[in-house]
Amino acid sequence: MDNRFWNKKTREQTPYVPGEQTAGACIKLNTNENPYPPSPRVRELISQFDTETLRLYPDPTSSLLKETIAGYYGIDKSQIFLGNGSDEVLALAFQAFFDQTTPIAYPDVTYSFYPVYSSNYSVPSTLILLSEDFTIPIEDFKAFPGSIVIANPNAPTGVFIELSAIKELLLSNRERLVIVDEAYIDFGGESAVGLINEFDNILVVQTVSKSRSLAGLRVGYAMGDLSLVKALECARDSFNSYTIDTLAQKIAVVAFEDGAWFENTRAAIMETRKWTADELAKIGFVTLPSKANFIFTTHPDFCASELYELLREKGILIRYFNKPRIDNFLRISIGTNEQMIQLISTLEKIVKGEQL
Amino acid sequence: MDNRFWNKKTREQTPYVPGEQTAGACIKLNTNENPYPPSPRVRELISQFDTETLRLYPDPTSSLLKETIAGYYGIDKSQIFLGNGSDEVLALAFQAFFDQTTPIAYPDVTYSFYPVYSSNYSVPSTLILLSEDFTIPIEDFKAFPGSIVIANPNAPTGVFIELSAIKELLLSNRERLVIVDEAYIDFGGESAVGLINEFDNILVVQTVSKSRSLAGLRVGYAMGDLSLVKALECARDSFNSYTIDTLAQKIAVVAFEDGAWFENTRAAIMETRKWTADELAKIGFVTLPSKANFIFTTHPDFCASELYELLREKGILIRYFNKPRIDNFLRISIGTNEQMIQLISTLEKIVKGEQL
Repeated sequence: MDNRFWNKKTREQTPYVPGEQTAGACIKLNTNENPYPPSPRVRELISQFDTETLRLYPDPTSSLLKETIAGYYGIDKSQIFLGNGSDEVLALAFQAFFDQTTPIAYPDVTYSFYPVYSSNYSVPSTLILLSEDFTIPIEDFKAFPGSIVIANPNAPTGVFIELSAIKELLLSNRERLVIVDEAYIDFGGESAVGLINEFDNILVVQTVSKSRSLAGLRVGYAMGDLSLVKALECARDSFNSYTIDTLAQKIAVVAFEDGAWFENTRAAIMETRKWTADELAKIGFVTLPSKANFIFTTHPDFCASELYELLREKGILIRYFNKPRIDNFLRISIGTNEQMIQLISTLEKIVKGEQL
Repeated sequence: MDNRFWNKKTREQTPYVPGEQTAGACIKLNTNENPYPPSPRVRELISQFDTETLRLYPDPTSSLLKETIAGYYGIDKSQIFLGNGSDEVLALAFQAFFDQTTPIAYPDVTYSFYPVYSSNYSVPSTLILLSEDFTIPIEDFKAFPGSIVIANPNAPTGVFIELSAIKELLLSNRERLVIVDEAYIDFGGESAVGLINEFDNILVVQTVSKSRSLAGLRVGYAMGDLSLVKALECARDSFNSYTIDTLAQKIAVVAFEDGAWFENTRAAIMETRKWTADELAKIGFVTLPSKANFIFTTHPDFCASELYELLREKGILIRYFNKPRIDNFLRISIGTNEQMIQLISTLEKIVKGEQL
C-alpha cells in the first residue's frame, strides 16, 4: 500500500487489537461483556426519549451524569472526568500527564493498550515483572522512580491487589501519579476512589461497559483531584470537545440509578465465576483467583492455543494471548450459568478425550 | 492550582472553546445546530431498539453505517473512516498524517480547532491570509510546499470555493495531502468526494451533526483513498478502538436512509438563509455569500461585540469571535423562519435606535 502520507508514528505504530466481535451465533466469552442486559430502566428511558433534542450538541460538561456518579461515590462532581469509554479516558490521561520526559511503569502482564498508549505518546515505559503467582510486586513498584499505571483487578489475570498496597504506592512517593484502571472493580474488588480526597496523586478510572452492561454505549470516567480533572479536560478539548453523546449520557445515568439491578447482576456473575472455577478445578485446570468478570486459567496437560481452537470449532469463543508467560492460559469471560455449563461440558469432553 | 502532574503540553496548551450550550430558554443561533429535528425514522428506530444489545461492544467496523454512506456517495466502504464526530476524525487525521516534520497550511480565518490540533500534535503550521473578500487565495495555497487543511464552505465565513480550485490544489502537488472539512457542505456547496477515486491525496471530512440534525449523536466520517483510511484506523486503534456506540451507528443509518427529510430540511434552511441575508441587507448589514447553515455579517455603523451583547440580553444567542480581521462580524446560525423573524425584528430596532 502507498503510505507516503503516513507520518513516522503511523508507519511505526502497532495499534491495539480488541477481541473479535462476532455477528454469528456463538457463546461469546471473549471480550468480558456482561451476560445480562442493562437495567430495564434503559428501555423505559429510550422509549420516552425526545429524539428532537439530538439536533443539539450534547451537554459538554455531562453535568447530570457527573452528579449521578458523584452521588454514588460520595465525591464532588468536580472530581470526575467523563470520556467515550475508559479507553479514551486512559488515552487522554497519557496525553495529559505523560510525555518523553516522564518515565512510567506498568506490569509486564496487563492490559495490552498501555504499551500502545506509551508508544502513541512517546512515553518511556518500564515493564515490571509480575510475581510468579501473577500478583503485583509492590516493592518493585514502590522502588520505581516515576508514575505508575496498574489495572486492579489486573487484566487478563483477574488478580486484585488490596487498597493497602495502593496506599503504600501513593505514600512512597507523592510526586508520582498512580493511575488505577478499575474497569473490573465491581466484581468483588474494593475501589480506590475512597483515596482521592486524601491523595492528589491517584487517578481512578472506571467504565459502565462491564458491571453496568453498557459496553455498547461507550462511557468511561476518571475520578481524582480537581487538578487532574482539569488536565484531562485540557487534553480532551485539544482533541474533541463533545465526546459523549446525549443518549449515552442519559442512559448511563439510569444505569447508575438502578442500584438493585447492578447488585443482582454482579452477584450472579460472581457466583457463576466461583462455580466455573470449581468445575474447572475438577477437570485439572488451575485458575488464578479472580475478582473480575473473567477468569484466567491453564491446564498442565493441554496446550491453551489448542483448547482455544477446539472451543472455537464448537462455537465457544474465548480469548487467547500468544504472549510470553501467558501463552498457556485462557481468558474466559463469565457468561450466564447456561453458557458456563456448556463451556465446562465441552472442556470436560476435551480433557477426557471424548468425542466432541 | 497544583499542576505538578501536568506535562509540558498540558501546561502550554490553549484548548478549543466551543460555543456555549445553554440550558435556559433562548433563541439559540450560536453553534450551527439544525433548527429542525432529525428524521422521524430516528424515533421509530429508537422505539424498536433492543436495549439488550447494549451489553455488547459496538461493531468496531461500523459496517452497516459504512455501507449506507458508501451507497449514498457511490463509493466503496473501504474508502470510509468513521469517528466520534468530525472533530475526532480531524484530530485523528492530524495524528495519523502530520507531525513536527510535516509543514501544513490553513487559512488565517477558519475553524479554530485547526490551530489547536496543530499545537496538540506539534505540527508546524502556516496561516495563509484569506483575500479581502474572505475567499481562499488559491495561488498562495498552491505555492505552499506542504499539506493543506481547508474547510469548504469555510467557517465562520460560510464562503465556498469551487471544486475546480480544489482540483488545482490536488494537481499542483500530488505529494501534498489536502484535507477538505465539509461539515457544512450540504447547504448549497458541492462535495469533493467525487475526487477521491481520481486523487489519492484528498481526504474529505463530513458529519451528521449539521445537515442531518444529529449534533447530539457524535458521528463524523472521512472519505478518501484506502491508504488514508488505513492510517486513520491505525491512529484510532492507538487511541480508542470503539469510538462510535451502537445506538449512534444505527441512528446515523436511518438519517441517511431518509433522503426526503434531508432534502426538505436543508432546502428550508437555504431558503431561510436567503431571506435572512436579504432582510439584513435592508437594515444595512453586509453579509458574506454563504453556502453554510450560518451567515457571517457585519454592519458599518455598529460594533459587532455590542450587537452580540444586545441580542444576548434579548435572549438571542449568536457567536462573536474577538479575533483579528473578524472582530466586527457576527456569525448567525440559520434557525427556523420564526426565529429569524424575531432576530431581524430585534436587529431592526437596534439599528433604528428604537426601544428594545
